[in-house]
Amino acid sequence: MKVLLVHAHPEARSLNGSLKNFMVERLTQAGHEVQVSDLYAMQWKAPLDVADFAHVEPGAHFDPVLDSLRAFEDGTQPDDIASEQAKLLWADAVIFQFPLWWYSMPAILKGWVERVYAYGFAYGIGEHSDTHWGDRFGEGTLAGKRAMLVVTTGGWAPHYSPRGINGPINDLLFPIHHGILYYPGFEVLPPFVVYRTGKVDDAAYARITEELGDRLDALWTTTPIAFRPQNAGDYEIPALTLRPDVAPGRTGFAAHVSD
Amino acid sequence: MKVLLVHAHPEARSLNGSLKNFMVERLTQAGHEVQVSDLYAMQWKAPLDVADFAHVEPGAHFDPVLDSLRAFEDGTQPDDIASEQAKLLWADAVIFQFPLWWYSMPAILKGWVERVYAYGFAYGIGEHSDTHWGDRFGEGTLAGKRAMLVVTTGGWAPHYSPRGINGPINDLLFPIHHGILYYPGFEVLPPFVVYRTGKVDDAAYARITEELGDRLDALWTTTPIAFRPQNAGDYEIPALTLRPDVAPGRTGFAAHVSD
Repeated sequence: MKVLLVHAHPEARSLNGSLKNFMVERLTQAGHEVQVSDLYAMQWKAPLDVADFAHVEPGAHFDPVLDSLRAFEDGTQPDDIASEQAKLLWADAVIFQFPLWWYSMPAILKGWVERVYAYGFAYGIGEHSDTHWGDRFGEGTLAGKRAMLVVTTGGWAPHYSPRGINGPINDLLFPIHHGILYYPGFEVLPPFVVYRTGKVDDAAYARITEELGDRLDALWTTTPIAFRPQNAGDYEIPALTLRPDVAPGRTGFAAHVSD
Repeated sequence: MKVLLVHAHPEARSLNGSLKNFMVERLTQAGHEVQVSDLYAMQWKAPLDVADFAHVEPGAHFDPVLDSLRAFEDGTQPDDIASEQAKLLWADAVIFQFPLWWYSMPAILKGWVERVYAYGFAYGIGEHSDTHWGDRFGEGTLAGKRAMLVVTTGGWAPHYSPRGINGPINDLLFPIHHGILYYPGFEVLPPFVVYRTGKVDDAAYARITEELGDRLDALWTTTPIAFRPQNAGDYEIPALTLRPDVAPGRTGFAAHVSD
């Protein structure tokens, strides 16, 4: 199978850098083809801005949405964006690996999402009407592919537990899992989270890589998070709220996962 | 009073650009001093990387946390970072204004947080031990100041309602409200959210600016979100979980807001 690893850490000799190398080796040894987008090493351009859109005349009004569609359709996107889109289309599975910075992904990775996820590629797919709100949340360009987050954090596991001060890790990751990965069609696997990164000695590193290795070995068999497809009957359209008989009385992120 | 407006949109003639101008005018007319950090206009450097740290020798191991502390303490931070920190210290209130892109802030603003929020400035403040986990979540460098988000989104309000497919807007914004603003001490006001930005005609714009104007007029009197302070007895330390008698049985983001 083909695996794309999108990696966002500024120091190759960090824990994240080591885990990235471990993953490449493990996947390669298992016979998979691996490509790595090492965003810091690539000096990835983070901001989505008018410089990405050659067709916008100097001084013309720039629309991040409509100009994204035009560049995608006309094939005038910058090479770095088109190249990442090609990697996504090539991959059977994509692993996003990053440290949790201020409770979300690093800016350089967020900028990868904003620029690579063009209108026509990752959103704006399919019919958009009052009865069908696009092919998204379970459908879309990346349907049939798997995605998994590998995340490190300095905090302790209890800080991210159901009553922990940071909020539950699954809720913190929901906007990524559901809003960035499930949206264009990925099947999203449960995340692999490393806590308390300041205290990783040799024994802890051995345990982490053993567990991570098991997750990589099970990349094709692990059951994805059971997010509810948008267009399979669970949602009212166009309100896009859960129908009253679906998870009755429940609210919040967890209501969008079926039992 | 003094207001800092941190603005992140790439097109000055956009809805966001218009709302930014409206806010500057309204606040100035009310007698406040206003500074604007227009991140796209400033060509703000988004990624936190080794280039920010002059003291790191070429080829040396870069530690984003420890090197951040050293640069902050030694006064060797880049001017753009030090300048934003000075604006934060100057301000009585800070407004962050941005379009919701992929369910979070634009990368350029996330990178502002990562770079400006230095170790010693926004985190790593106060005693860190098994009985006091730093001055944060209600205490810290920015305590006594107010912060408010002004957010635009193309989706409809029901899509962001308690049972909406995107997740409730308050939950989507929790990692920013609580994890980025309350963390270093800000009092966080309820957000001002504009939905369905593709359909803003003159009448809608008039209604939006009237409501936003009211919010600005009430910037000093609006009741902040009642997040629970970390160090006032609601949390077990060092587990940082809610004590059993606090919001008993409740989990998730909302449990960190007192009734």
